[in-house]
Amino acid sequence: MREVAAIGVGITKWGELWKKSFRDIYVETALLALEDAGVDRIDSMYVGSMSSGLFVGQEHIAALLADYLGQTPVPSTRVETACASGGLALKLGYMEVASGMSDVVLVSGIEKMTDVSGNEATYALGTAADQEYEGYHGITFPGLYALIAVAHMEKYGTTREQMAMVSVKNHKNGTKNPVAQFPFEITVDQVLNSVMVADPLRILDCSPITDGAAAIILYPAELAKKMGKPVVKIIGTGHATDTIELSQRTDITWLNATYLAAKSAYAMADKKPEDIDLVEVHDCFTIAEICVTEALGFIEKGKGGEAVEQELTAIDGKIPVNPSGGLKSKGHPVGASGVAQAVEVVKQLRSDCCDRQVSDARIGMTQNMGGSGASAVVHIFERE
Amino acid sequence: MREVAAIGVGITKWGELWKKSFRDIYVETALLALEDAGVDRIDSMYVGSMSSGLFVGQEHIAALLADYLGQTPVPSTRVETACASGGLALKLGYMEVASGMSDVVLVSGIEKMTDVSGNEATYALGTAADQEYEGYHGITFPGLYALIAVAHMEKYGTTREQMAMVSVKNHKNGTKNPVAQFPFEITVDQVLNSVMVADPLRILDCSPITDGAAAIILYPAELAKKMGKPVVKIIGTGHATDTIELSQRTDITWLNATYLAAKSAYAMADKKPEDIDLVEVHDCFTIAEICVTEALGFIEKGKGGEAVEQELTAIDGKIPVNPSGGLKSKGHPVGASGVAQAVEVVKQLRSDCCDRQVSDARIGMTQNMGGSGASAVVHIFERE
Repeated sequence: MREVAAIGVGITKWGELWKKSFRDIYVETALLALEDAGVDRIDSMYVGSMSSGLFVGQEHIAALLADYLGQTPVPSTRVETACASGGLALKLGYMEVASGMSDVVLVSGIEKMTDVSGNEATYALGTAADQEYEGYHGITFPGLYALIAVAHMEKYGTTREQMAMVSVKNHKNGTKNPVAQFPFEITVDQVLNSVMVADPLRILDCSPITDGAAAIILYPAELAKKMGKPVVKIIGTGHATDTIELSQRTDITWLNATYLAAKSAYAMADKKPEDIDLVEVHDCFTIAEICVTEALGFIEKGKGGEAVEQELTAIDGKIPVNPSGGLKSKGHPVGASGVAQAVEVVKQLRSDCCDRQVSDARIGMTQNMGGSGASAVVHIFERE
Repeated sequence: MREVAAIGVGITKWGELWKKSFRDIYVETALLALEDAGVDRIDSMYVGSMSSGLFVGQEHIAALLADYLGQTPVPSTRVETACASGGLALKLGYMEVASGMSDVVLVSGIEKMTDVSGNEATYALGTAADQEYEGYHGITFPGLYALIAVAHMEKYGTTREQMAMVSVKNHKNGTKNPVAQFPFEITVDQVLNSVMVADPLRILDCSPITDGAAAIILYPAELAKKMGKPVVKIIGTGHATDTIELSQRTDITWLNATYLAAKSAYAMADKKPEDIDLVEVHDCFTIAEICVTEALGFIEKGKGGEAVEQELTAIDGKIPVNPSGGLKSKGHPVGASGVAQAVEVVKQLRSDCCDRQVSDARIGMTQNMGGSGASAVVHIFERE
């Protein structure tokens, strides 16, 4: 297996992009990554997208996007594992370069979610849960995470305010991110008084519905060094599953797939949580970020809420979590989020993040998950 | 890169399986493959499915199926490239074993298409075409292949009867296949007098709407040899794309992605068309089989129709095409077809096909495509 580097990244402003088509958003982002990498060809493409079928009435997007990028007959593959589709695309792109099957691989994530009504979007997102045993009985995604939140509050004494602080922190970070959908600060009071979605989660605990894409170019590290550019290597990758149904888990506050994916990635990279300088995690809801920081080993089990309150996860804290603004402020075009996390980590490790730069960042991590945590993909990056 | 063998296959009766759920069909088939392989664990899973979102209202099937197979926390990946999703899953499973990332990989394809109405199924299948530039203007899948048929008739003198003969041949082969959805013989007259779908294609030129799955276990060839079972290796893999829109191609009778995918697979396997003993091709419509046999290099360009008439593609002909009955008689659960083709080839190379056995079969090929040919995946298999 060869060492793999990320040599180019691309991302454009996220939001409600009604004036751009699905294919426009993709091509715009992919071209930025190609330009950043300075390559004149690609050997293979991976696209992560959760539900282009339900959101834009288009499957077969791998060929469609290869075509619109002017890259046919390059092999093009779409992967899906709900909101972890982007992270999974990165894993497969990594595998293709590491194995020696290809040299230049373009990995992207994309979702265009605002061309359908809110109800249709909620239905589409619900297909990440078990449709027969959860969806049929009326539960929605916020409902599943609300159950996790209540359990965490009950078991560990996590407070409503601590959850709000996740959102406040991420929005603060997001003000420094030019591509963020909601780049403004909010207060704990605003979160606590925002519209109720699924008790105890309110609208400002939830990541938004977003249109957007992100792209990254992978290349053998050995060849990348010869290009004289900053080389950021992927040194660990982990992927695991858990029961799709929340009710089948022993402890719904513990994200076991995330824990196991991280364990694999740490082992492969030969790193420990203490070695990580920053992490982009899947804060689809505020409670998710709290549980994830525990499963990744950064914070003791049950102390995720306290850690936010103590500002351990702030940009200048013990472990900066979501310097990009996270899903909450940056936006959450579901299939794109996993790739966007990697884009942020690569930029941080290149010291390209201006006002939101984590100082002395050399090793970074991404954690992307699908559904209520049934799929998780973790990557570790290191700057040479 | 390590050599990769297929050591277990599973397939169950295809058809309108209203009494079985999506997950039931999957588990039943996967267990057969695991039993056939004689392995007691899997390291990773790939699932090909075109549109579980539109057909059964469920995305995130990778985790769902890992869970229902009792295989969590194994990493599980869904891939999609329309009707070539199964072939693509096989390619990725191959890559994972060849690269050394995993030893035992379960590759499956699945689609449950009859839980929705005929109109909804037609809409879902249409998402494999360009929705904005083809679907929006009213074209359906049979319509796209009808355009190809007319062009082939016009350019090469292919006749209506020759197309019908593809269907007659495949139905004849299908009578010997216990899992086929329509295991009965038909006549040229029946095809010519069947209901018109899109002129000149009639209902008996079209593959059906089907529920079904297929599964295959991949394993390092070196280790497989020690198990003392017949070893069928994957010796070539190829994947390519073409414009998604038919109107953008120079010659719509020529399936360029299939040609290029085959070229890669032949080169990797160091084989020529003359070396292939049988091939399972993507006969979604009768004209498709004709065009595919030309693009794969078995039949001279433009002579695909004549070749069927001369019985060159019969089970005892120069190049047996679709001994399983093909998509036409066996059925076409879109995401499953690519894996089912591989299941048939493995069985043929093991001489496990009873009445439909191709004699002295040692090298076989599969060709799976998506949309009107914008994605194509080709594999070559060899029995040790």
